[in-house]
Amino acid sequence: MEFNISVISGDGIGPEIVREAKKVLDRICKKYGHTFNYTEVLMGGVSIDAHGVPLTEEALRTARESDSVLLGAVGGIVGKDSWYDLPPQLRPEAGLLKIRKGLGLFANLRPALLYDELKAACPLRQDIAEAGFDLIVVRELTGGIYFGERKTEEIDGVMTATDILKYDENEIRRIAVKAFEIASKRRNKVTSVDKSNVLDSSRLWAKVVEETAKSYPSVTLEHMLVDNCAMQLVRDPGQFDVILTENMFGDILSDEASMITGSIGMLPSASLGEGKPGLYEPSHGAAPDIAGKDLANPIATILSAAMMLRFSFDMDKEADDVENAVKAVLREGYRTKDIMSEGCIYAGCREMGTLISERI
Amino acid sequence: MEFNISVISGDGIGPEIVREAKKVLDRICKKYGHTFNYTEVLMGGVSIDAHGVPLTEEALRTARESDSVLLGAVGGIVGKDSWYDLPPQLRPEAGLLKIRKGLGLFANLRPALLYDELKAACPLRQDIAEAGFDLIVVRELTGGIYFGERKTEEIDGVMTATDILKYDENEIRRIAVKAFEIASKRRNKVTSVDKSNVLDSSRLWAKVVEETAKSYPSVTLEHMLVDNCAMQLVRDPGQFDVILTENMFGDILSDEASMITGSIGMLPSASLGEGKPGLYEPSHGAAPDIAGKDLANPIATILSAAMMLRFSFDMDKEADDVENAVKAVLREGYRTKDIMSEGCIYAGCREMGTLISERI
Ligand SMILES: CC(C)[C@H](C(=O)O)[C@@H](O)C(=O)O
Ligand SMILES: CC(C)[C@H](C(=O)O)[C@@H](O)C(=O)O
Repeated sequence: MEFNISVISGDGIGPEIVREAKKVLDRICKKYGHTFNYTEVLMGGVSIDAHGVPLTEEALRTARESDSVLLGAVGGIVGKDSWYDLPPQLRPEAGLLKIRKGLGLFANLRPALLYDELKAACPLRQDIAEAGFDLIVVRELTGGIYFGERKTEEIDGVMTATDILKYDENEIRRIAVKAFEIASKRRNKVTSVDKSNVLDSSRLWAKVVEETAKSYPSVTLEHMLVDNCAMQLVRDPGQFDVILTENMFGDILSDEASMITGSIGMLPSASLGEGKPGLYEPSHGAAPDIAGKDLANPIATILSAAMMLRFSFDMDKEADDVENAVKAVLREGYRTKDIMSEGCIYAGCREMGTLISERI
Repeated sequence: MEFNISVISGDGIGPEIVREAKKVLDRICKKYGHTFNYTEVLMGGVSIDAHGVPLTEEALRTARESDSVLLGAVGGIVGKDSWYDLPPQLRPEAGLLKIRKGLGLFANLRPALLYDELKAACPLRQDIAEAGFDLIVVRELTGGIYFGERKTEEIDGVMTATDILKYDENEIRRIAVKAFEIASKRRNKVTSVDKSNVLDSSRLWAKVVEETAKSYPSVTLEHMLVDNCAMQLVRDPGQFDVILTENMFGDILSDEASMITGSIGMLPSASLGEGKPGLYEPSHGAAPDIAGKDLANPIATILSAAMMLRFSFDMDKEADDVENAVKAVLREGYRTKDIMSEGCIYAGCREMGTLISERI
């Protein structure tokens, strides 16, 4: 099979982790006789440097016309990189928001899974880590307060800023459907997270999710308040299968969920819309402090590429191959710096990519 | 000295934990020759049962005219208690929002402190727990999306819900001042948490906090994104002294911060305005499942009473007495059910209150 992949290396460690993911994809091509054509697309700081904006219309068009998008990471350091002297809508992260909206990627899937080999890195108490957890946050990604109107104005001499959080039932229903579909292929449980004791948007959220649940009788639905969910993730993450939530809560909870694994260098993500292309990126950021030093962990990006194979190209077997290769390398004791522990064998970014591709 | 205290026992375990806090306050009165006059005020489910609303205007007036308010907890179980068949603005929790706004309690202080004796209960990895932490979340409590306009309407046949997040510079400045004042009596560090890469209100927040910082040259200010803060609380809570944030983020982060102690039955809170009265309540909720069984931990409420002595009545010595009595009882090995561990001595709610008051 032949597919066109837009590759956004981005900033910081982006280029090195994407390079390793491509190494792995190339290996898959070789093994299975597929062809992946890569087109490099600029986004983030590198695009600002080249074009003055974090994502050009042309770059967006290229991405839209491809079969899928592989992203490293974008962003730099506030107060250090001159990108942050620009107004908000011209900063690196604005490119990310623009591509999400531009490609209609309303569903952000972020698995948080504790690898057996990495339990020692888990920041939770030993008995909680031992019990393990394997959850996925399904975050709405193109609505809510991220994309509502906002303004800052002087009212009677007083500076006032306003952001609008808005959801309609269709936006809620389509992400709810995704969550139930995913849950029905996992452990059949959806925890819908909102703040329905305060927000109208949360009450509509809960109602539409409740209606959607009727079409999935084998999936159990529970509702949880966002403050409680932030607690439960620490206390007993094993209780969760699929966490379904809106954009802002999803931003916070999915990051918390990745951190409780203790190995965010391992966690992929997928952002999907109604059709193609999907966007695949590691859960972690651009880590400019370690960029170019061969210290980054490419595994999250490699596993994001595996998600791409599975979700965008329907290549389950190929995706399994990549995931198994990652597990094999971990079992053999190889570790990048961020997940290094006693008795393990150090591997740089490049070597880790090579090791994984060799096991496919 | 003589003070008038409004006592809101509320629902669930509210009455039993408040009873023990009063036992301790009575002991302080005896020791120091103070007089505290208590007036019982209805709020939450009990008020709905009596008056059809979670807080009457008269109850609010009583609270406003007192020197301070001691609150147990309000709320029941959605889907079980008939209170939740009422529209949102008539449910138990609406009473809480109404009293906060009605008393102008814009500053919510929530300490999260790991007691040496309770480190085993901490859900974080042993080395993180051993390192310890002692932070306080300063949450804005009368603004933001909690109190903006909201509506649910049909637009072209599609149900749409909107909530407005609004802050003006004065609201931000007064809570920032509180945070810097508190930090300058602690470890001189403020971490201001926002989502300034997305929200206008967060950008105004960061700017005003930055300006406010200039008046506190001995306090270090750092800015952190809310998603990152949710991660850092799990990874390295010891890095925080004062976390300053807006209402909704504060709701989520303060709950997460209490949970990482593993003993939320120990954590008090204070909500303060410009003048009197302040409101003091445990960080935990009404726990209806264990109500009336003498199983509740009264310590959070007792420590809230200590905060009342300190902040509302300027009774530092008396507050110290209460806090030391709590520590003494813990050191002697007494534990309520929620914090029980091997080798400790079980105490019910009532006995725990007695033990603490006896040590004053
Ligand atoms: C960079 C930022 C705008 C973005 C978000 O908040 O969505 C990031 O935190 C994420 O989760 O992908
Ligand atoms: C009951 C609810 C409205 C309230 C809030 O969100 O403020 C509670 O969670 C709290 O933190 O005191």
